Amino acid sequence: MKKLLGTSLLLLSLTVFGQVQEDSIQFSKISIEILNNGKSYTELKDLTKNIGHRLSGSEAYEKSVKWAEQKLKDAGADKVWLQEVMIPVWERGKESLQIKTSNGTWKGLKMLSLGNSEGTGGKDISGEIIMVKSMEEYEKLPAEKVKDKIIFFNYPFSQSFVETFRGYGDAAKYRTTAASLTAKKGGKFAIIRSLSSAFDDVPHTGAMRYEDKVNKIPAVAIGNTTADELEKLLKSQKITAKLNSNCEMKGEKLSHSVIGEITGKKDKSVIVVGGHLDSWDVGEGAHDDGTGIVQSIEVLRTFKKLGIQNNHTIRVVCFANEENGVKGGIQYGKTAKENNEKHLFALESDAGGFTPRGISLEMDDAKRNQIKGWSALFFPYGVYNFEGKYSGTDIYPLHDMGVPTAELVPDSQRYFDIHHTEEDTFEKVNRRELLLGAVAMTQIIYMIDKNW
Amino acid sequence: MKKLLGTSLLLLSLTVFGQVQEDSIQFSKISIEILNNGKSYTELKDLTKNIGHRLSGSEAYEKSVKWAEQKLKDAGADKVWLQEVMIPVWERGKESLQIKTSNGTWKGLKMLSLGNSEGTGGKDISGEIIMVKSMEEYEKLPAEKVKDKIIFFNYPFSQSFVETFRGYGDAAKYRTTAASLTAKKGGKFAIIRSLSSAFDDVPHTGAMRYEDKVNKIPAVAIGNTTADELEKLLKSQKITAKLNSNCEMKGEKLSHSVIGEITGKKDKSVIVVGGHLDSWDVGEGAHDDGTGIVQSIEVLRTFKKLGIQNNHTIRVVCFANEENGVKGGIQYGKTAKENNEKHLFALESDAGGFTPRGISLEMDDAKRNQIKGWSALFFPYGVYNFEGKYSGTDIYPLHDMGVPTAELVPDSQRYFDIHHTEEDTFEKVNRRELLLGAVAMTQIIYMIDKNW
Repeated sequence: MKKLLGTSLLLLSLTVFGQVQEDSIQFSKISIEILNNGKSYTELKDLTKNIGHRLSGSEAYEKSVKWAEQKLKDAGADKVWLQEVMIPVWERGKESLQIKTSNGTWKGLKMLSLGNSEGTGGKDISGEIIMVKSMEEYEKLPAEKVKDKIIFFNYPFSQSFVETFRGYGDAAKYRTTAASLTAKKGGKFAIIRSLSSAFDDVPHTGAMRYEDKVNKIPAVAIGNTTADELEKLLKSQKITAKLNSNCEMKGEKLSHSVIGEITGKKDKSVIVVGGHLDSWDVGEGAHDDGTGIVQSIEVLRTFKKLGIQNNHTIRVVCFANEENGVKGGIQYGKTAKENNEKHLFALESDAGGFTPRGISLEMDDAKRNQIKGWSALFFPYGVYNFEGKYSGTDIYPLHDMGVPTAELVPDSQRYFDIHHTEEDTFEKVNRRELLLGAVAMTQIIYMIDKNW
Repeated sequence: MKKLLGTSLLLLSLTVFGQVQEDSIQFSKISIEILNNGKSYTELKDLTKNIGHRLSGSEAYEKSVKWAEQKLKDAGADKVWLQEVMIPVWERGKESLQIKTSNGTWKGLKMLSLGNSEGTGGKDISGEIIMVKSMEEYEKLPAEKVKDKIIFFNYPFSQSFVETFRGYGDAAKYRTTAASLTAKKGGKFAIIRSLSSAFDDVPHTGAMRYEDKVNKIPAVAIGNTTADELEKLLKSQKITAKLNSNCEMKGEKLSHSVIGEITGKKDKSVIVVGGHLDSWDVGEGAHDDGTGIVQSIEVLRTFKKLGIQNNHTIRVVCFANEENGVKGGIQYGKTAKENNEKHLFALESDAGGFTPRGISLEMDDAKRNQIKGWSALFFPYGVYNFEGKYSGTDIYPLHDMGVPTAELVPDSQRYFDIHHTEEDTFEKVNRRELLLGAVAMTQIIYMIDKNW
């Protein structure tokens, strides 16, 4: 009996070893194929240079829908379709922010209205600037000191966190809540210091939200250098700010997420891999999230190119409207539920096209530990960190339905230098870093498809 | 007895836990200090923009010696000195490479002579280009097919390796040996395809070597795009190339490495941390190796700033002449031996100022395993890979004397896009990536100083 057990263990370990070796060879094939023949980089160039930024509701977004449809067909999808989504239409229009110092002259500041913010309807709105350095400081300000004033939330992005997403998370409430907080005490509009890890003067836009039943006043962002200069000026004098902007939320319109899949050979349960097709209306939406889109298409193309027989359906989803509504993600989840589709797993890439370091796992411990058990396979590809417990915004609706979800974790050091800015361009993406992200995504999808 | 043993084990584990906690707190202090107050980035800007590239023997190199001396004093070194080194003086001068296609017109190509190469003495040298795609192909060429010809070694940088240093290592022999190989079969000069991971037309220089007793003919590099175009042209026609260059090895001159240290509080045994101060004569020597220099100075500054009591002497060495002679490293080892200085450890940063991923260890297994035992402390800083078994060029002489040596391992994806080119500029360095490298360096030096 003992001997038999020994033999079975030996056979088992040989089988496991054979499996690991087979997986290791497949990982290598995936990597060599993508590093040499991957199309992500040239497709990203096409998307960013020929279409550019593509905010929900814009003509450019509609062009990108057609673009993604074609790219999924080119990649070899068995089936490509558009999923209807009602998306918000927010437009920026012309905007300007000026300050008047004690010498009486007006000076224009580099700025961007925050996304979803109302404007001034093309009229000038002005008032004295009151600066606060933190929420706590703002909370202590009595309403009479805020009334008719402009509140400047000058909270700096913390450099202390190693993961810059933690610095972003730490400062994000200023962007989302500054307008309503200011309105509740009678202020005229809010200025925030950009959520930026860079030491430059580039303003960062991004979504803000209005609280229900609170007056909708404008909120704008200024770059770090301008914020520092303004802080300095405010130490010695009163400063008046004047805003003129035409931003406007113009209701909703019908648009689409783009979906393509290769049908499962064993069953029709679905593995999703995706990113979001929309972007803010500045820069080129390269790292956010053109890279996630081209990498997801690369996964499908690589399965076809290498002839990997997928057990389950592998579905690429190019989500609509992540930036200012997540309507694409919500609609996708809703439709999946309505159609009673079984989803095995969903992976998003929406943290930039930088060199990958890990995969963050939002799922039960049994599944998490199974994936962690594969980590030796990933190590040679620089992917070692499976400790994160979050996943992508667009796949939260799937997560909430009980689907195990995950997100690619690229190196985060450069992301918040350029996130939601004019600087988020193709030139900021490195070819090999982008492709290695697609390699890791294809590898994890391969393992899930094979083992789940 | 059993109970006593239990108690001792408990005490021991509490002590170990206390140690780990103390180290973890110190790691955090180092990281927060450098990410917020580190001077590496502004000092790199100063070095690259106010001095620029600084080849051994140039006036700029001598300026950088004075610069490093001052920066080490500013950082709080107890002692700063210059170490005399005889270094080679190689000068590029004017250079041009042209090709004549079958339509008879001459066309200039973007090129760089390889470092240490002889020129044409200002005269034109021309001949028909013969292309080979590999060493094997060249070896098969009979001498009569090479005689009086120009040999174009068109070996591409392999994209298949995840670590780009492996691609570099794979292609490096073409740069180092092309000239002598060509000369031995009677060729006039050699052209190589640049050792470049980028898909652009930037030529990469770098050191070549002449074999003894072989005619010293010129060798030049062209960028990838030019190489591809040339390959295409050669398929349909004979091409003549004409080189005119003034490069020249002008003998030796006295120069200096720059050294600064903080004296050990317990003993005078030495821990070295360094990079090389010289660079090639193009670009700004930013990633290669301005970043290693400013990071090494940051280590010293951080020890002083945080008041860390160093047991052993911590010595920053800014090595002279890594690029075309390693004379600074060789001289440093020689002097250490002559002075009978005990060296505990040496760490180099010479792989670019990119986000750190690991520390490569060239030492016996006992020491390697001790350092690997600290890896949980490094993990939160993105430093997880201690598998490498090599170390820096400048500290090989120390390694050969039995000193345990190591090298910072930054992410390698972008390095060979810009290595030894006009593109190796300050703008290619990210502030946080650079500073995190200095964090990891300070952390490992802290651990070695405390535990060895």
